[in-house]
Amino acid sequence: MRGLDTDTEYDRKRRAIVQGAAEVFAKRGFVAGTTKEIAAKVGLSQPAIYHYLGSKEDLLREIVVRIEYDMRQALDTGLAIGSTPEEQLREIVRQFTIAIIENRTTFTVYYKELHQLPRSVRERISAAEREFVAEIAAVVAKLQRDGRLPEDKPATVLAEGIIGMVSWTHRWYRASGPLDADAIAETFLALICLSG
Amino acid sequence: MRGLDTDTEYDRKRRAIVQGAAEVFAKRGFVAGTTKEIAAKVGLSQPAIYHYLGSKEDLLREIVVRIEYDMRQALDTGLAIGSTPEEQLREIVRQFTIAIIENRTTFTVYYKELHQLPRSVRERISAAEREFVAEIAAVVAKLQRDGRLPEDKPATVLAEGIIGMVSWTHRWYRASGPLDADAIAETFLALICLSG
Repeated sequence: MRGLDTDTEYDRKRRAIVQGAAEVFAKRGFVAGTTKEIAAKVGLSQPAIYHYLGSKEDLLREIVVRIEYDMRQALDTGLAIGSTPEEQLREIVRQFTIAIIENRTTFTVYYKELHQLPRSVRERISAAEREFVAEIAAVVAKLQRDGRLPEDKPATVLAEGIIGMVSWTHRWYRASGPLDADAIAETFLALICLSG
Repeated sequence: MRGLDTDTEYDRKRRAIVQGAAEVFAKRGFVAGTTKEIAAKVGLSQPAIYHYLGSKEDLLREIVVRIEYDMRQALDTGLAIGSTPEEQLREIVRQFTIAIIENRTTFTVYYKELHQLPRSVRERISAAEREFVAEIAAVVAKLQRDGRLPEDKPATVLAEGIIGMVSWTHRWYRASGPLDADAIAETFLALICLSG
């Protein structure tokens, strides 16, 4: 018997379709992109796309939910691995940078096309994003209390600065470049002023 | 006689139309947004929109070109005001943050809808963006040589980190919040580790 954790052919097909959809939406936009193009890219029929994932809107929702999940995972992993606020912040930046770089096409679509989804989905995603910022700001606030980050600045803006630095990577990163995700994360960490 | 520098009624109308177009495109997307909605938002007729600026694509091109111009202005002002590399970097961050916050709606459209423009326009804009990154990286490299920024990290990635921090502001900044653009720029500057 196969357990729930087994990566099945079904899961692999779904992932391939989501990646194909992200590539089509990133290039052509959600409105102009078609399931026909997605099917051609993935090498499946349109009915197969529909069977595995559903309509174009279902595909976009799946892209968005996966990014939300990956961001949450990066944060939770960072919080769990780090035993001090500094280690937590460093690990969050590392995990988040890796997640953005690995999923840069889906992240592009997440960011550009979120407004195409129904209000209920958007509101849930916005709440998750606010929670993400608040948890990083809480780590920043601890570092401020320890005198490691400037105490006279708002923790939320410092957190948004760090999140922006990492998020923007999706726009300029090229796999053909000389640096991997780890090296980029280390560069960002060297830029952030953790004194003391 | 009116000189070329005079801000005419014509210029004001054009600016209002570009702002209205950016609001419609930011909310509905370029493909779904219509000149009818833009006309309604600005309080002009569709023929008037066409007279002052042209088609929907002309509107998008005008949005993109204005953002390119504003980014260039922020960079040139920063380079001109600062008399040392540190002052230049600080002033560039300040000017660029102010430009992004003031133009956050047009910047959103610039970033999300650039791919809708013809290849020739996109290539020119990409070249301008590369030049923008290269000039900030050159200031960063000077600071590295002076030991003010980590010397063992690539200047371009440090520059992209700084640009990302500022660029991302367009996504979270709310005019109703407690901080103005200057205070946000100062927070980013406090986050960047200029040692020595």
